[in-house]
Amino acid sequence: MKKITILGSTGSIGTQTLEIVKEFPNNFEIQGLTCNKNIDLLEKQIIQFKPKYVCVMDKEAAKELEARILPDIIVYTGLDGLINIATESKCDILLTAVVGSIGLLPTYEAIKKGIDIALANKETLVTAGKIIMAEAKKSGSKILPVDSEHSAIFQCLQGNEKNTVEKIILTASGGAFLDTPFDDLKSVKPVDALKHPNWEMGKKITIDSATMMNKGLEVIEAHWLFKQSYDKIKVVVHPQSIIHSMVEFKDNAIMAEMGVSDMRLAIQNVITYPKRYESPVKTLDLFSVGQLNFVRPDFKKFPALRLAYQAGKEGGSFPAVLNAANEVAVQKFLKKEISYLQITQLIEKVMHKHKNINEPQPSELFAVDRWSRKVAREVAECL
Amino acid sequence: MKKITILGSTGSIGTQTLEIVKEFPNNFEIQGLTCNKNIDLLEKQIIQFKPKYVCVMDKEAAKELEARILPDIIVYTGLDGLINIATESKCDILLTAVVGSIGLLPTYEAIKKGIDIALANKETLVTAGKIIMAEAKKSGSKILPVDSEHSAIFQCLQGNEKNTVEKIILTASGGAFLDTPFDDLKSVKPVDALKHPNWEMGKKITIDSATMMNKGLEVIEAHWLFKQSYDKIKVVVHPQSIIHSMVEFKDNAIMAEMGVSDMRLAIQNVITYPKRYESPVKTLDLFSVGQLNFVRPDFKKFPALRLAYQAGKEGGSFPAVLNAANEVAVQKFLKKEISYLQITQLIEKVMHKHKNINEPQPSELFAVDRWSRKVAREVAECL
Repeated sequence: MKKITILGSTGSIGTQTLEIVKEFPNNFEIQGLTCNKNIDLLEKQIIQFKPKYVCVMDKEAAKELEARILPDIIVYTGLDGLINIATESKCDILLTAVVGSIGLLPTYEAIKKGIDIALANKETLVTAGKIIMAEAKKSGSKILPVDSEHSAIFQCLQGNEKNTVEKIILTASGGAFLDTPFDDLKSVKPVDALKHPNWEMGKKITIDSATMMNKGLEVIEAHWLFKQSYDKIKVVVHPQSIIHSMVEFKDNAIMAEMGVSDMRLAIQNVITYPKRYESPVKTLDLFSVGQLNFVRPDFKKFPALRLAYQAGKEGGSFPAVLNAANEVAVQKFLKKEISYLQITQLIEKVMHKHKNINEPQPSELFAVDRWSRKVAREVAECL
Repeated sequence: MKKITILGSTGSIGTQTLEIVKEFPNNFEIQGLTCNKNIDLLEKQIIQFKPKYVCVMDKEAAKELEARILPDIIVYTGLDGLINIATESKCDILLTAVVGSIGLLPTYEAIKKGIDIALANKETLVTAGKIIMAEAKKSGSKILPVDSEHSAIFQCLQGNEKNTVEKIILTASGGAFLDTPFDDLKSVKPVDALKHPNWEMGKKITIDSATMMNKGLEVIEAHWLFKQSYDKIKVVVHPQSIIHSMVEFKDNAIMAEMGVSDMRLAIQNVITYPKRYESPVKTLDLFSVGQLNFVRPDFKKFPALRLAYQAGKEGGSFPAVLNAANEVAVQKFLKKEISYLQITQLIEKVMHKHKNINEPQPSELFAVDRWSRKVAREVAECL
């Protein structure tokens, strides 16, 4: 019986993880669940999965939930609560599926305790990859990727030595605007950007797909997860999203992992690892797919990709600046305060103003995060 | 230093293996080389690779070669000689690249001695898969596939447990006649069938590609190599031959191995296994490939595929009958004694006349092989 705690159980990844857990009642047990403030859904999850610990980020909502549920369930609240549940819920695997930089500290503290991490929170490795991987090495905590791309790479690497890797090839759907002419991008609206061709995901990540910042952040994640230099990490636009990603080895053999566009594939793989169980996800029918295409990514049309490589190569605090500025920009775009093209313009301007910190500690990363958001908001006023 | 003996060093696979060996003078040493009667090429190979043992199937040619080369090189001849070199050349890996059923006994005897086999000779597993795999299990000999398809599957399986396999998916180029209408197949000539779209190979295997018997034989090989029932082995027509084959796992993840259409990829993989070295083969450029297609195989247009599944499922001596009848039929087609469509008609008629032997011993398999050839020649007269 594998014990699982999910940070962010009411979100897209969280609910899909619980769907998988439900399929294997004899293999998994839920120790802890958390939400931001969606206590109605969390309450249903508590009744169904009987966790011993829960955390609600919003203090008022936490109080309300506590009044509704059985008194033997421990209810935490706030960031301290999230750290408590991450480190004290006695789980075998902590699935970090909260959105944004809020995921960093709980994950970091759990890693320090040697807890294995199923990582769905991009920001953790993007902003603090160096510290996180060093700490994981020290404590023996395994970092298992939940992203379909990194899960694919993880699977391609199995049975192979790290020094035989020639290239990591991340596939990208190309997002909502793959076929949109550059000139038309000036006037696209949030509703257009939210139409992802293949994946059902949250709003933030769907916008990140449209700008291809999502792929950029994945490049930085891949750099840390698989310990490869940026010139060995390539992006291939593959509009069908059937090949989830690939690894090219020194002998020029390329291993690829394929499947339907369903996050539950990667989620199940990570929680059952190193085993593979039958999946509720449907089989890929190659005959009905018929065709897979590959196109070179357009760095001019999607400057987010260029900015991400740039931030990754600069290293230090730059990826944290990129990430925080992007979060602000996406929120502003969703609120129609800035245009689509201004998302990356804003990020680039914030990056220009930043002076790199070479080996930032977590506290410095939080300061950088706050600085980047503040500057992003200021810059947005002058766009 | 890995010591290699190659049975069939002057053929297509043999010469390509030596090209790889030449690239890694510090990793490989050639112990033995053999040919049918191309002693001019074998002599050149002897000078370059300095084997201690050679074998020439043709007795006259063997004598002539012996007169030409240094006296400290042991020269064997005939089938006994082939068995001697396979078992006594003190190699770490025996690459069996002779064409046809001649490969069976030398491979079988080497396996009995626990020697690891790089298997490029299809007939060995097709005709005697059960005995071969049982003997390999007993002696601890590893059977490593050289075929690009089986090499791909072998790579896809690495790091995974056998019982997690849901399906073996063999890709097929579709051969020279993929897009030829059925009615036009009546009049196709050997010269048409020898135009393989992707791979440079010997004549026999190129004709087998055109009929898709090659894929049928690979299905039977895959059954023995990967211990999967025939209903779990599928064929997908993939005209670009970029994906060399795939494995679908229980969790519906599909692993695929991809690369350029160059046999040296699979050859190098097998002789360097479990390591991966840099390859003289060029990198796959997905952008210039652009597109991969998948089509359901047409069992009506390519009855060889149906016959191979049928022979495989019947088991016993049936695959040996299929294989021998096919060898006769292909030779007769190349000599223009029968038409293209008569290749499979002939095989089917021979199969109809056969009474299965359930657990054939090697000696019985040779008798079946002779019987099948004899009947095939008789049937050919009456087509």
